Amino acid sequence: MSDLVGVDLGGTKILARFVNPETGWSEKRVKRPTPSTGPSDVLEAVAEVIEELDPDRTSPAIGIGVPGLVTADGIVTRCPNINGWDSPVDVAATLSKRLDRPVAVGNDVNVGTLAEHRVGAGQGTTAMAGVFVGTGVGGGLIINNRLVAGARGMAGEIGHVTTHTGGRVCGCGERGHLEAYAGRAGLEREARRLHAAGTENELVRLAQNGRIKSSHIAKALASGDSVTEDLIADAVEALAIGIGSMATLLDLPLVVMGGGVVDRLGKDFLQQISESTAFGGFGSSVCELKLAERIDDAGVVGAAILAADQFL
Amino acid sequence: MSDLVGVDLGGTKILARFVNPETGWSEKRVKRPTPSTGPSDVLEAVAEVIEELDPDRTSPAIGIGVPGLVTADGIVTRCPNINGWDSPVDVAATLSKRLDRPVAVGNDVNVGTLAEHRVGAGQGTTAMAGVFVGTGVGGGLIINNRLVAGARGMAGEIGHVTTHTGGRVCGCGERGHLEAYAGRAGLEREARRLHAAGTENELVRLAQNGRIKSSHIAKALASGDSVTEDLIADAVEALAIGIGSMATLLDLPLVVMGGGVVDRLGKDFLQQISESTAFGGFGSSVCELKLAERIDDAGVVGAAILAADQFL
Repeated sequence: MSDLVGVDLGGTKILARFVNPETGWSEKRVKRPTPSTGPSDVLEAVAEVIEELDPDRTSPAIGIGVPGLVTADGIVTRCPNINGWDSPVDVAATLSKRLDRPVAVGNDVNVGTLAEHRVGAGQGTTAMAGVFVGTGVGGGLIINNRLVAGARGMAGEIGHVTTHTGGRVCGCGERGHLEAYAGRAGLEREARRLHAAGTENELVRLAQNGRIKSSHIAKALASGDSVTEDLIADAVEALAIGIGSMATLLDLPLVVMGGGVVDRLGKDFLQQISESTAFGGFGSSVCELKLAERIDDAGVVGAAILAADQFL
Repeated sequence: MSDLVGVDLGGTKILARFVNPETGWSEKRVKRPTPSTGPSDVLEAVAEVIEELDPDRTSPAIGIGVPGLVTADGIVTRCPNINGWDSPVDVAATLSKRLDRPVAVGNDVNVGTLAEHRVGAGQGTTAMAGVFVGTGVGGGLIINNRLVAGARGMAGEIGHVTTHTGGRVCGCGERGHLEAYAGRAGLEREARRLHAAGTENELVRLAQNGRIKSSHIAKALASGDSVTEDLIADAVEALAIGIGSMATLLDLPLVVMGGGVVDRLGKDFLQQISESTAFGGFGSSVCELKLAERIDDAGVVGAAILAADQFL
């Protein structure tokens, strides 16, 4: 299969590489800052990066990962992480016209999941999910070897599955979502709320007025802080319920987990989830949890794979 | 498209019809009892029914719905609803050899969902779920216009999604599953438990020592029995949580609902679910709930559609 150009369009930078979709191997890369003057400037910058990387137009198709909601046909309906992007844009149509080649567009977490599936921890399975626990909790789904985008590009959003009816308020305003328990930001809100209410804890002591980082969580756990232990037990329970339900619904044999919190807490954290009594449903008995392989430039690699899946 | 033979292999009878996969329209039918003497007799009976219906072998492929777990390639791994079926059988391979044509095999609820998708309430959408609330709660999933079987043929099993952590014991032995709250059997268990513990209720009064039927539930609600109202409120909440989570995870625009309890309680029941505050997640805002169209012989029709999808 020919090498393709993959692009990771991020909130601060645009990164493009040639990628071999079967091995993930890539070479030359081009990088530049993301304009904050609106979608047309952003797309022009993306096109220029691609032309700089591939002046002879050898790539038969282009793949682009975007930090927003993307429909299956490449319309970016929301993109709050890029300044100035305030309305839906048909990125696939605009750029394929500009570049005279087919262009595939996917959500960044989704194409990261696709990269794990094809050249990372998910190789060999036909169905899996990626679950990424960082500031929030995001995810992607592979069914029948293909990425599932969903009607509005929101498939795989496990962070907003209800795991605790009537529970903690989530960043999105609703109650009891997985992300409110397992995401770093949700954990921080709860730790600060407890601290302010008189339940002092190591997380707030370590972070002071700064952000509570994944490294603070690891340190507080190592010091045996009981509030942190309780918060992590809640996070484990929420992930066990959410992943167990997802594995049941989709009969998934594998969930690959990554993101800052998972990277920091490692295998132990995954083991706690899979051994939790809350990891129920019919899915849990055969659903394996694996650490993501943290592929270099996973967004770029996954974007190129998406283009290969759609057009080659 | 040519008409195909669809077969509904049930616990008590085998039913076969010619089906037009695009209209669901069918004509001649052949029926006979399901043997209870083990899989090879059952498969021979299925083959004979097909030969009786289609002696000239005009059907280019055959579809079969089975009340058990079926993998994507047609192996029936479990089939507790047919007497004597106590080990996995490669139904697709066995029957395609015997009949000299390709044979597609699917779970009965899954192929019923496929029938609703193609010729029922789900026409025109590329993704949907079927949720059937009867004695238990079963379901099926359509993604990218195709039925999703899952690694072991268990995809769509929303009944065993955890909606109430640590809650009521489900028929499967685990706690807090949707089915324990919304399925007729789970509702009956709870009504009888409450009654025995001194909380008398109309459901047990109506059913006496017989089974509590969907019609008893409707009657008890109509009479304003507060215990039944509470039980149905719990069922609505469980369905709202489960369907909301599924719609979020898969970004589903449509869920088609059927089964004895839904048929009896009708549109009001669906409205209560979609208006519940528990119908959360990102999915609820655009996920429509519709009553199933209760297609005649939906299992037969769905099985023929499955064969058309796989082989034509």
